[in-house]
Amino acid sequence: MNAPALDVVGIGNAIVDVIAQADDRFLAAQDLSKGPMAPLDAARAEELYAAMGPGVEMSGGSAANTMAGIASLGGKGAFIGKVRNDQLGGIFRHDIRANGLTFDTPPATEGLPTARCLIFVTPDAQRTMNTFLGASVALGPEDLDRDLIARAKITYLEGYLWDATAAKAAFVEAAEVAHEAGRRVALTLSDPFCVERHRESFLRLVEEHIDLLFANEVEICSLYQVEDFDAALQKVRGHCEVAVLTRSARGAVILSGEEVHIVDAEPVARVVDTTGAGDLYAAGFLFGYTRGKTLHDCGRIGAIAAAEVISHYGARPEVPLHPLVQKRLGHI
Amino acid sequence: MNAPALDVVGIGNAIVDVIAQADDRFLAAQDLSKGPMAPLDAARAEELYAAMGPGVEMSGGSAANTMAGIASLGGKGAFIGKVRNDQLGGIFRHDIRANGLTFDTPPATEGLPTARCLIFVTPDAQRTMNTFLGASVALGPEDLDRDLIARAKITYLEGYLWDATAAKAAFVEAAEVAHEAGRRVALTLSDPFCVERHRESFLRLVEEHIDLLFANEVEICSLYQVEDFDAALQKVRGHCEVAVLTRSARGAVILSGEEVHIVDAEPVARVVDTTGAGDLYAAGFLFGYTRGKTLHDCGRIGAIAAAEVISHYGARPEVPLHPLVQKRLGHI
Repeated sequence: MNAPALDVVGIGNAIVDVIAQADDRFLAAQDLSKGPMAPLDAARAEELYAAMGPGVEMSGGSAANTMAGIASLGGKGAFIGKVRNDQLGGIFRHDIRANGLTFDTPPATEGLPTARCLIFVTPDAQRTMNTFLGASVALGPEDLDRDLIARAKITYLEGYLWDATAAKAAFVEAAEVAHEAGRRVALTLSDPFCVERHRESFLRLVEEHIDLLFANEVEICSLYQVEDFDAALQKVRGHCEVAVLTRSARGAVILSGEEVHIVDAEPVARVVDTTGAGDLYAAGFLFGYTRGKTLHDCGRIGAIAAAEVISHYGARPEVPLHPLVQKRLGHI
Repeated sequence: MNAPALDVVGIGNAIVDVIAQADDRFLAAQDLSKGPMAPLDAARAEELYAAMGPGVEMSGGSAANTMAGIASLGGKGAFIGKVRNDQLGGIFRHDIRANGLTFDTPPATEGLPTARCLIFVTPDAQRTMNTFLGASVALGPEDLDRDLIARAKITYLEGYLWDATAAKAAFVEAAEVAHEAGRRVALTLSDPFCVERHRESFLRLVEEHIDLLFANEVEICSLYQVEDFDAALQKVRGHCEVAVLTRSARGAVILSGEEVHIVDAEPVARVVDTTGAGDLYAAGFLFGYTRGKTLHDCGRIGAIAAAEVISHYGARPEVPLHPLVQKRLGHI
């Protein structure tokens, strides 16, 4: 087995975010519920965009945000995801490469346009995300760069893609390629509704293919159909090498075999926009993991990265994370 | 003559800004000089975008930013400018309409794509703008909505467009339509290099068609080929009804007939990005002017609007300006 050439390869939706401020009245009028990511068809995407206030566009996508975080921490990474050969696709490609990441998935030359996520940020700093997945769900096993996956320490899968049949096949195949090369496979559950729609197959995926599982409190409770976080915690133990359960301001719980770590959230002067919190937590954790840090320190790096991203609008870091972690943690 | 239905109609470039942070070394390596807006051809635009860090996209364009400011102040406005029927064109149209502005200029269905401005923000909060004008310069007299112009109190022209032959003809025609309807015509000089390239025709335009002139210190010195601000001030007096000369942190000087007002800059806790300072100053001033405010108060409203926009990234206001001015000025 060759030495790993990369720290992490992320596989996920290739999305450009459109972020605008909105109040609760707007959400109610548009029949939008706060928080999780709701899928939009093309017609509803048009309608909602028309009603939306002036926006800011930024490259997004959950695993892509995580990869941007890993690059900002000094990690070497790559991304696999599908855009269309259109302007937003060009923007996505530019931004992810400008972060120093490898991104060579060929764009679709026909079919739906590049995915767009309409994000409404309310004054309480919560984000309501509505996504037109467009070209993103066209990702299939043929888009996998097997050599890249075999040479990355960790392959990181974005649960959002589990909605698409071809992408499911790509996930399983990527996991197999990674494991054959002696690497690790990580998954983020991404969204409670996504878990709801695919609980059985997610459970099988976790059981059979996943070494590191990321989930927030709502997602992990949904996966195991329990009401209570502690109940979910009991359920997940032993089902993967490492489980990282995030609880927003209440910090994170990290489980590995008999080990249990509770790592507090990093203080934030003002929470502006929670978009990307989970993505950047995963970035910090995975970066630490590839560097052989203790699980506690992996959690600390995750918390520091998440605190940075929620202190401003947008789901990607605004300042280089490597020196930030160096300063807060004392080492990296 | 009908009562005006609109406060201001702006005519200018329809541009989507791409904003990224950069350091002085990057600017030097790319042979970019700070501050003013440099034009890019398609090839150089591609090359520079490739070298640029991850960006944030926001609708921009000087006069369009001004119009967004006027809408945020509670004014009724419209914009005339040219996009292509592509994704960035759709974003521009969405954002300007989402601001409550009328925007009905038909998009080009062939030719160059929607204009893009690559903006590098250095740690000193200066912006270096490089613009691929694309479809924007296709604006011609046939794009003017004469009825709209005749019914706006003020027609506001963006000097950047003076580089394009068809747009020059559109400017003169718009000014004539406005004056025939008994309205006022305003111009911003936009850029010292633009002034340099077209000094004689700018002087003629100001002399023959402009009632309100906006210029910063460098631009007005360039227009009159003088080294010293005070010399420029002496030159401009009497050449238009109102001249508004902005001097960044040193405030603004407003001239009208015998009147001279010096209005200090509004204090700002931290200058983050000066992009849009002049555009928003013009927005505040023009809004006050359409409301019959004193020239001093027009200048104050301009200063308050400019202070808001330089306190964050991007050239459009992040908070509603009407209550902000109400609070700072005590009336609006």
